[in-house]
Order: sequence, then structure tokens, then C-alpha cells
Amino acid sequence: MKELESFTSHGGVQKVFSHYSEVNKCDMKFAIFFPSMDTKIEFSVVWYLSGLTCSHANVMEKGEYRRKAAELGLVIVCPDTSPRGENVPDDKDDWQFGSGAGFYIDATVKPYSENYNMFSYISDELPSLIKSNFSVNINQQGIMGHSMGGHGALISALSFPEKYKSCSAFAPIVQPTTADWSIKAYERYLGKDENAWRKYDATRLIEDGARFPNILIDQGKKDPFLHDGLRPEILEEICHKFNQPLTLRMHDDYDHSYYFISTFMNDHLDWHNEIINN
Amino acid sequence: MKELESFTSHGGVQKVFSHYSEVNKCDMKFAIFFPSMDTKIEFSVVWYLSGLTCSHANVMEKGEYRRKAAELGLVIVCPDTSPRGENVPDDKDDWQFGSGAGFYIDATVKPYSENYNMFSYISDELPSLIKSNFSVNINQQGIMGHSMGGHGALISALSFPEKYKSCSAFAPIVQPTTADWSIKAYERYLGKDENAWRKYDATRLIEDGARFPNILIDQGKKDPFLHDGLRPEILEEICHKFNQPLTLRMHDDYDHSYYFISTFMNDHLDWHNEIINN
Repeated sequence: MKELESFTSHGGVQKVFSHYSEVNKCDMKFAIFFPSMDTKIEFSVVWYLSGLTCSHANVMEKGEYRRKAAELGLVIVCPDTSPRGENVPDDKDDWQFGSGAGFYIDATVKPYSENYNMFSYISDELPSLIKSNFSVNINQQGIMGHSMGGHGALISALSFPEKYKSCSAFAPIVQPTTADWSIKAYERYLGKDENAWRKYDATRLIEDGARFPNILIDQGKKDPFLHDGLRPEILEEICHKFNQPLTLRMHDDYDHSYYFISTFMNDHLDWHNEIINN
Repeated sequence: MKELESFTSHGGVQKVFSHYSEVNKCDMKFAIFFPSMDTKIEFSVVWYLSGLTCSHANVMEKGEYRRKAAELGLVIVCPDTSPRGENVPDDKDDWQFGSGAGFYIDATVKPYSENYNMFSYISDELPSLIKSNFSVNINQQGIMGHSMGGHGALISALSFPEKYKSCSAFAPIVQPTTADWSIKAYERYLGKDENAWRKYDATRLIEDGARFPNILIDQGKKDPFLHDGLRPEILEEICHKFNQPLTLRMHDDYDHSYYFISTFMNDHLDWHNEIINN
């Protein structure tokens, strides 16, 4: 593991590391914020998974999470959104596939299955690396994300309710197996058998019996992707039908940008902290 | 004036406009945050002047000012750092001169004097434009800035204590007429007569009799430019000698980045609000 950047901020320290990922077979970067440099405290961890086209850097620069995380004593980990590099197969003409579009799934179709294993990376490999190297309590984890990363947070929490205590999302893709902007990627990563897609779709997971204590979702009503890519009403209906607790907040005037995310970031960190530490 | 961007954020709205500048003879962009869309309130205005290489966008994305500004009810205006465009003379090999390096002065040497008139732009042209177009109280202004923009805030406040009620700076260039990274630009913009440089140097202005009620400065001790470009101790000595009030806070571990600025942004907005509105 190699430290690439380090900045004192809000009384803590924001760092960026790179490391070789065994499951993705390439070097990966991630950002990690420590609320203080006190290595005697085992901080709880909140994961932030980013959206399409993003890397670890977008939320690190624009997410405005450090003041609150420092106040609450939370470590914030922000992974990249896909494997990257010369040896990683990609489709540079499609922003919804390949680099920046890993969709937090483990691909099964070659050649993508060699590298695109973000589900295992987020749920296993990176937490193990964080645990071995830093003073964190990996039993006290929460997970959140934005858009494609909101989908990632939802499927991670629903798949591993024993690993994550809390889950939230900003404008998540709630049903990627039927959304215009993810269906093509699912076919290329996972093949044509749609049954194999179900475990990477929050709504299907709930239909198939997965449950999580409660989920907070914030969604802007002026989000340009509201009615095709995101469609929170689908999740709302399925949660209602299957008794999955959901706290969905719709906000007038807000869009899909970090201006929206940063507005509600404090609420999400409070949400995670209250569940994790109580 | 043309609206280029608009984002609801923290209960207010962040906008970006372009307009033709008469003094700079080119199109200029600026960012402006409104704490609410209530057009019946005349909000106080705080200016943020950015540093070398920056545009209006850096602080808009990374400055983390919106939550506090919305809470306090302050309009935040973030201008560009220089004229720009095909017809504006530039030196693309020098990041300390030309585009992104206007130094908030009015150039007197041709061809730069045609366009590089940021001092008049910041103190006259842009405030007039803001006043004519938005619901603001232009008699209730504060000014702050970072690095080259910190210098800009200092010379603006010291030159026009009747226009600005409050002034603060993050890691300002305190004596640009002798700093390695500004002296060349001053010679090219203003000519070789150093007497003509004095009115664009906070320390010389104070020596020559200018005063401002109080100035807040935050400076990181791990700032890589501390000992050549910035040198707060020079300002401290001159303020002491000439009875100019100064609140200089030195911070262990902090550098020159927006990770530093965003940490102390709330303190600065509180500082401005308390002076402006009391």
C-alpha cells in the first residue's frame, strides 16, 4: 500500500492510497479520512460509494463530509468506482460501462470477469486491507453512496446485514436490472440470464427475502435522471409490499450533483453515527 | 449578463454568470451563492478572491462555504482571477503572470493595461453589476481571499475602508512587491518604478497611512509557500509598528490547499457576519 496524498483538514487528515487489488488484478486508489491522528481510538467506518464516471476524488473534493465526520469521530472511506489501467478491458465510448462504471458487481463474462469484481472488492478485499493497516473497528461499519454508488450501498447492505449496521443513499439507481442506463452493462458483465442479475439489484434482493433494519434515501425532484435511471418509487413500492423499512425523502429543487449531496451529507453522517454507535 | 449554471444547495442557490467586462474588455465569469431565493431580503455580501491558477470554480466546488452562508444569510461572490480569452495577452509558460494571475491590480504597461484591470473590476465594476441585478445590500460588504486573493482582499479593504466593513484572508501574499513569485508580474504589469507598486501592496499601504478596523488571517505552518511567497511575519511586524489591528492565527500541520481553507471557512464567515451585521 502506498500513500499518495495527505492533507490535514477539519482537525483530521484526508489521505489517498493506492494498492494492488487481487480481485480486480490492477492497482486501485481509495481516499480515507481520519477524524484525528489518535491511533489509540478504533474509529467506526462509513463507506461512500461514488457514481458513474467518478473516482475516489469527486466526493473527497466536493462531498463536504469532513467537518461532520471529525465531529462524530467517523472514518470515511471512498473507493474508486471500477478497476482501471492499460490491462483492464474497457469501452471508452460508453460512460455506462467499463472504467468508472463497475456497478459494484462481480462480472462473470470474459474478459471482464478478470478485473471487474467490485462487489468482492468493496465487501471483502478493501475492508480487510483497511482493518490490517488502520486503527478502525470494522465491526462498526455503515455504507452509503450516490447514484450507481447508492445502488452499490443498497446491495452491499442487503447482502451483508451482518457486516453493515447502517445504510443510506443519495439518488440511488434502485432497480439496475431494468434501468435504461445499467441494463446494457449488466448484460455485458453478467450474461443474458437475468436470474444471475438479481443478487445485484436491491429490489430483487428484497423480493428474494433480503432485509436490512432501515434505509435512508434522499432524492432531488429536479434530478434529470429521476424518471429513467433512478425511479425511487419502484423501491418504495417493493419496500412497502415486503415490509422492508425505508425512509425516503424527496426534495424540491435539488438535482443530481454534489451541490445536492453536500447539502444532505450531515444528515447521512448523523444517521450512520446514531445507528452505529447506539 | 448570462446565467450559465444554477444549483440548489444548502437551502440556497449557487449560480454562475458571465458578462462582458468594460474594464477588462473581455467576457468574465463569476459565481454567486444566494442563501435563499427570497428576493425581498437585501442580503449582505462577502467577496471571496481566489489564488493563482484558480478561476471562480475552485472555491465554489471545494470551499465549503454554503452551509454557513445559508445559515447566516450571506451572499457569497467568487470572481475570476484575471481576464481571459483569445484577445487577452497572456504568457502560457508562466503560472505567475497573465491568465489566472491578475494580482487584483490595474496594469499600466501595454499591452496588459488594455485588459488586466482587476482592481477596478473587483472594487467598482462587479459590485455595480451585482447591485443592479440582485437583491443585495452593497453597503454591507466584507471581503476575503486566499493567497493571491488574500492579497487582493487586503489591498481592497485597506484602499476602501468605506466600502468594506470586514476583511479576512487565508494564507495571503502579504508583500507582493518583494515576494519572489509576484515581483516579476508587478514589473510586467506596472513597469520598473517601484513607487507605482505601493498601492497594490498591503504592507506599503499601511506604511503610507491606510488603516482597516481589524483583519483576520489564518495561515498553515506546513504551507510550502510560507517562507518565500507568503511571509505573514512581515505583515505582523508592520501592523505592530503602525498600530494596524491584526488577528493572525498560525495553524500546525495545515498546508495551502482547500483542505485548509474549508477547515476555517466557517470561522471567517462568522467573523464577517459579526462585523457586518452588528
